[in-house]
Amino acid sequence: MINKVLIANRGEIAVRIIRACRELGIETVAVYSEADKESMHVYLADQAVCIGPAKSKDSYLNMENIISATVLTGAQAIHPGFGFLSENGKFARMCSECNITFIGPDAETIENAGNKAKAREIMVNAGVPVIPGVNGTVDTEEAVVAEAKKIGYPVMLKASAGGGGKGIRIVKDESEIVKAFRTAKAEAKAAFGDDTMYMEKFIEEPRHIEFQVLGDIHGNVVYLGERDCSMQRRNQKVLEEAPSPVMTEELRREMGEIAVKAAKAVNYKNAGTIEFLVDKHNNYYFMEMNTRIQVEHGITELVTGIDLVKEQIKIASGEELSLKQEDIKMQGHAIECRINAENPQKGFMPSPGKIKYFNVPGGPGIRLDTAVYQGYDIPPNYDSMIGKLMVYGKDRYEAINKMERALGEFIIDGVDTNIDFQYDLINNPKFISGKYDTSFIEKEV
Amino acid sequence: MINKVLIANRGEIAVRIIRACRELGIETVAVYSEADKESMHVYLADQAVCIGPAKSKDSYLNMENIISATVLTGAQAIHPGFGFLSENGKFARMCSECNITFIGPDAETIENAGNKAKAREIMVNAGVPVIPGVNGTVDTEEAVVAEAKKIGYPVMLKASAGGGGKGIRIVKDESEIVKAFRTAKAEAKAAFGDDTMYMEKFIEEPRHIEFQVLGDIHGNVVYLGERDCSMQRRNQKVLEEAPSPVMTEELRREMGEIAVKAAKAVNYKNAGTIEFLVDKHNNYYFMEMNTRIQVEHGITELVTGIDLVKEQIKIASGEELSLKQEDIKMQGHAIECRINAENPQKGFMPSPGKIKYFNVPGGPGIRLDTAVYQGYDIPPNYDSMIGKLMVYGKDRYEAINKMERALGEFIIDGVDTNIDFQYDLINNPKFISGKYDTSFIEKEV
Repeated sequence: MINKVLIANRGEIAVRIIRACRELGIETVAVYSEADKESMHVYLADQAVCIGPAKSKDSYLNMENIISATVLTGAQAIHPGFGFLSENGKFARMCSECNITFIGPDAETIENAGNKAKAREIMVNAGVPVIPGVNGTVDTEEAVVAEAKKIGYPVMLKASAGGGGKGIRIVKDESEIVKAFRTAKAEAKAAFGDDTMYMEKFIEEPRHIEFQVLGDIHGNVVYLGERDCSMQRRNQKVLEEAPSPVMTEELRREMGEIAVKAAKAVNYKNAGTIEFLVDKHNNYYFMEMNTRIQVEHGITELVTGIDLVKEQIKIASGEELSLKQEDIKMQGHAIECRINAENPQKGFMPSPGKIKYFNVPGGPGIRLDTAVYQGYDIPPNYDSMIGKLMVYGKDRYEAINKMERALGEFIIDGVDTNIDFQYDLINNPKFISGKYDTSFIEKEV
Repeated sequence: MINKVLIANRGEIAVRIIRACRELGIETVAVYSEADKESMHVYLADQAVCIGPAKSKDSYLNMENIISATVLTGAQAIHPGFGFLSENGKFARMCSECNITFIGPDAETIENAGNKAKAREIMVNAGVPVIPGVNGTVDTEEAVVAEAKKIGYPVMLKASAGGGGKGIRIVKDESEIVKAFRTAKAEAKAAFGDDTMYMEKFIEEPRHIEFQVLGDIHGNVVYLGERDCSMQRRNQKVLEEAPSPVMTEELRREMGEIAVKAAKAVNYKNAGTIEFLVDKHNNYYFMEMNTRIQVEHGITELVTGIDLVKEQIKIASGEELSLKQEDIKMQGHAIECRINAENPQKGFMPSPGKIKYFNVPGGPGIRLDTAVYQGYDIPPNYDSMIGKLMVYGKDRYEAINKMERALGEFIIDGVDTNIDFQYDLINNPKFISGKYDTSFIEKEV
């Protein structure tokens, strides 16, 4: 059994992991950069080791220093959190070579899931639906007509060298395809000096829906329902909810079983997430697999009652999953708003600096995961997340109302935040209706 | 439907009620004394009205001023919270006469439940077990022998004029009763100049276990399981948990049905609590009924998923209970620690004053109900409660570990608190074993 864990991370996820360890009676070692001396994770851990200067590559990405700190403090395991080294196969392998338990999947799984082409191939072979597309490029008018028929309309033509929306055409049916192919090619040639094209199915009004899975080292894998992360800004998640407003019991079972299949296809162990794009007809397509705990894991914990970080540690200790698929139920509704030190009025520019006043919402159904405290100086070196405000209600309606009142109670002075932005989001009629897709923030806000 | 509520209370319960109203889309009016100008409930409410000087009798107990504030602000209902006017039949009647909805039971119910003798009589008639005892005094040796036989040993002889433990005898069997009666009488005569005696059953290793009930105006009453409040200091609850460590499914159903019977016997509407004493053989006896929301209601909310304050408001609006008895389940385990501004080293002397630093615990399974914030000056005029720290875990073991880590994260500077005292309590092996009774703190701490 693991009795001492080093947390190779910072901020609220480091605090989250320390809390889980403490509740399990496991000792904790924090690591920190020179910029993070005053961080909450440093104060909360039983021990703390400085692993280098502020720059991530010199500290939180410095594998040798982290391994040294682990050996030095006698920790048997490393929890990588998310970001940093969490999806680094080399680091997982290094841990294993040093007889340190990496709390996550095997190096090989990480590498297979992390390689987009490889992952796609594995998923196709396992019978997991992927976004239909042409392997390689489409070079002739005949080929583009034939391939589009195979993929099914609408399709998206894209310049291989593309960027900034140039050389892209969405084609609804066969009557438009040849003309679109010609003009897109010409546009690409002009813009990039390269008119190589590829083509894939165009996903209409896509939602980002991801499934949480847990796998043990004995080959058991279960799914814990979905999270809807369609509320994004420039591919960054802003607000997440569980369950998804568009999910049905039947679709959840179907996608959940596919998610388990996907996890098994990469021999998955520990907590992981299968991300899908879901179109307006509820067709779903595998996007990618995240081989680590997810930022938004807490909303799954709220609706299932399962502590994912504790499960991660138990799995890493070699325990067999005590959860059976039929016992896992989603109850009620949870929403998470990411609270960032940033200025939505100025293009969401990060706003590091000293927290002069910090008053957090409380009462029933509120969960706040943060590493910030009054007097803390948010360093400019890392991401701008202040915390994750989560609410739980008996249904989506109650959860929305609870989030509204919780955001209203949250006071942060000293830095700019996106609290008002989130407040507007939660009060947006289209959000309230549940009918939104990944383009919502770009189009509506 | 109610759309504006005046909260005739202060502190965390006022904040709790404002939060529930806000989530229901109901406007709120706070009232406050001159000492409470800077209180959180004043800031959080939509409107706030000063109702008089610091002294409770001039403000929070000033019925006329509270009624005036209600009429003036156009609120249709008053939520009395707990304490202050919450169990004052006269006030409930006054509300009714002014066409203001009192969020609680009828004046008559309050008065019947509040009169100890009357309540006992109603419960006996309804078939609710009460602590067996002699009605009136026992005057002769023959009577004492005969009555003790009826009550069943052990019995407690008590001087009517008693106090300070004088004139009290606990008698295990008939062989000791006459001698005990004589010596207790003599002791009472010497101590109080009055040797009148009464007698009741002695409850061995009593636990304080209370049942939450909800009744609507249509005659439906349900129970929401129990809270164990045996952890007391001088009859003040210190720590509560739900479910009780000594409860069985069968006993819960039996006592729950008795609680419903008790509520129906006083024509109960709204949220109420039936308090029982439970002896070491799991015999239970009605103690009293609290005709208001209870301080410790939150732990019932955590294990049942039901928001009691919202239910109160719905009931007061005339809605029929949507909860069916068979749907109400206790899941997991919740513990509440009352965090007070007091000094356990100095006889728990209250410690009012300015909160210089306030860092609250967070993460999964933590709920904090407080009206305190950094910079707030706790006035010396009211009780010393800073807040109610609640945790929820999948079982009692997890809940205890969670409370331990949460207490460890809680930082309050500027006033003395009982946080360390609670920390010791939660780590006491006898508490952990679950085998404690109402004498625990007095005997063990």
